[in-house]
Amino acid sequence: MTDPCPDAFLALGVRLADAAREVLLRYYRQPLGIIDKADESPVTIADREAETRMREIIADTFPDHGVVGEEYGSDRADAEFVWVLDPVDGTKAFLSGVPVFGTLIALMRGGKPILGIMDQPVTGERWVGAAGRPTLLNGVAVRTAPRGALSDAVLWSTSPHMFDAVEGERAAFAQLRDAVKFVHYGGECYQYAALASGHIDLVVEGEMAPYDYCAHVPVIEGAGGVITDWQGGPLGLESGGKVVAAASPELHEAARQILAG
Amino acid sequence: MTDPCPDAFLALGVRLADAAREVLLRYYRQPLGIIDKADESPVTIADREAETRMREIIADTFPDHGVVGEEYGSDRADAEFVWVLDPVDGTKAFLSGVPVFGTLIALMRGGKPILGIMDQPVTGERWVGAAGRPTLLNGVAVRTAPRGALSDAVLWSTSPHMFDAVEGERAAFAQLRDAVKFVHYGGECYQYAALASGHIDLVVEGEMAPYDYCAHVPVIEGAGGVITDWQGGPLGLESGGKVVAAASPELHEAARQILAG
Repeated sequence: MTDPCPDAFLALGVRLADAAREVLLRYYRQPLGIIDKADESPVTIADREAETRMREIIADTFPDHGVVGEEYGSDRADAEFVWVLDPVDGTKAFLSGVPVFGTLIALMRGGKPILGIMDQPVTGERWVGAAGRPTLLNGVAVRTAPRGALSDAVLWSTSPHMFDAVEGERAAFAQLRDAVKFVHYGGECYQYAALASGHIDLVVEGEMAPYDYCAHVPVIEGAGGVITDWQGGPLGLESGGKVVAAASPELHEAARQILAG
Repeated sequence: MTDPCPDAFLALGVRLADAAREVLLRYYRQPLGIIDKADESPVTIADREAETRMREIIADTFPDHGVVGEEYGSDRADAEFVWVLDPVDGTKAFLSGVPVFGTLIALMRGGKPILGIMDQPVTGERWVGAAGRPTLLNGVAVRTAPRGALSDAVLWSTSPHMFDAVEGERAAFAQLRDAVKFVHYGGECYQYAALASGHIDLVVEGEMAPYDYCAHVPVIEGAGGVITDWQGGPLGLESGGKVVAAASPELHEAARQILAG
């Protein structure tokens, strides 16, 4: 009898989300300095404090588990169980006072995500996906709700500028835009959760890091959706990837074919 | 002793926002049909029901006031006092289950906005701006908080595709993007409110209708910001316009000069 995501891990994930939420709410909309990282993205004190707190809780509970965090890098990334943390996904939205950011928490087993949490502290919404279980929003099961054909689909992405650097990607995304009902931007992690809850049909993004997408995999799969890289391959710890998430296998395949050029 | 925005008008504005909020919350995240209008933007049952309800309340309270609404057009638009209503600004966000949409309510006197309300029903946030008074968020005064020079500014816009149709606008917006700290998309009416609250420095948008921007004028001006069309002219009922809003006169002027080409 093997549970693909034991209760003890689920309970730890919830504790991590609780800890991060307390930190984020304390700093949200407070005047803050912005410190540039090498990649020029803004990062807040909240980001570091939340990740530090989550790492402490993991070390206290399961000292043999690995951790990969957006702020403080990798620690035992070759362990059987590895937590992948993005304390503030959508730092630009956080700094702009717009509540579409969130805390992303994933637990990987052998490189595959078995638990994913997206926590939005301002609206008080928490999506929890775990292998072998239905995805829950604040304890209530949610399902994707594909609008039908690709021409009816609602597409979201964080920014079209994600695709500017590579001409083939820019062209593929523009073609997909023309094929759907409409495109909207600025969704950050919130757009993946809204897809799992049945309101968005497609999310397409450019190159992202594992802490940006690992948590979304169990959330979306547990709600009946499909999420892979642009080649249709699984999203894991090994490498970055361009992401395509869909409310149904049919929409996923239709979008992926366009993105493949 | 003339109050530029008498209490009776403010009280009616609040009643309209209450009525719209009840309707929007009832339909938010419920399965809905999307009915295309001629301009292809999706519009929901909530949109029509909320506007109908607000028009009834205005007619019952001040039958001589005019109304201009996004859904049902103009009624006595030449009256001294005219209410300008957008029951669901950001219908795409509403349909996508992402809480950055809102109800916009403005009261014009002689074509000039003297009252503006932006109500976000999901987060329970209501910004109220009235001529001669400080802008309030849920009853607490808010102020813009410019980050400083244009190169430090956080710029938001609903979508870059607003500027695609006119090459000069596209180029001007691209130049502004290069001049600021970063750009983010998808803000709808929420981005103007976040500017008034001190979290965003600049909002720039393409051609919009009066019900899209009139409510923002008292909200932003009452918080210390500046909002005009791209030429620096006042925003009113007379015509549509391209909008530039800023957290300070200096940022407004710097952005406007770039947008003027």
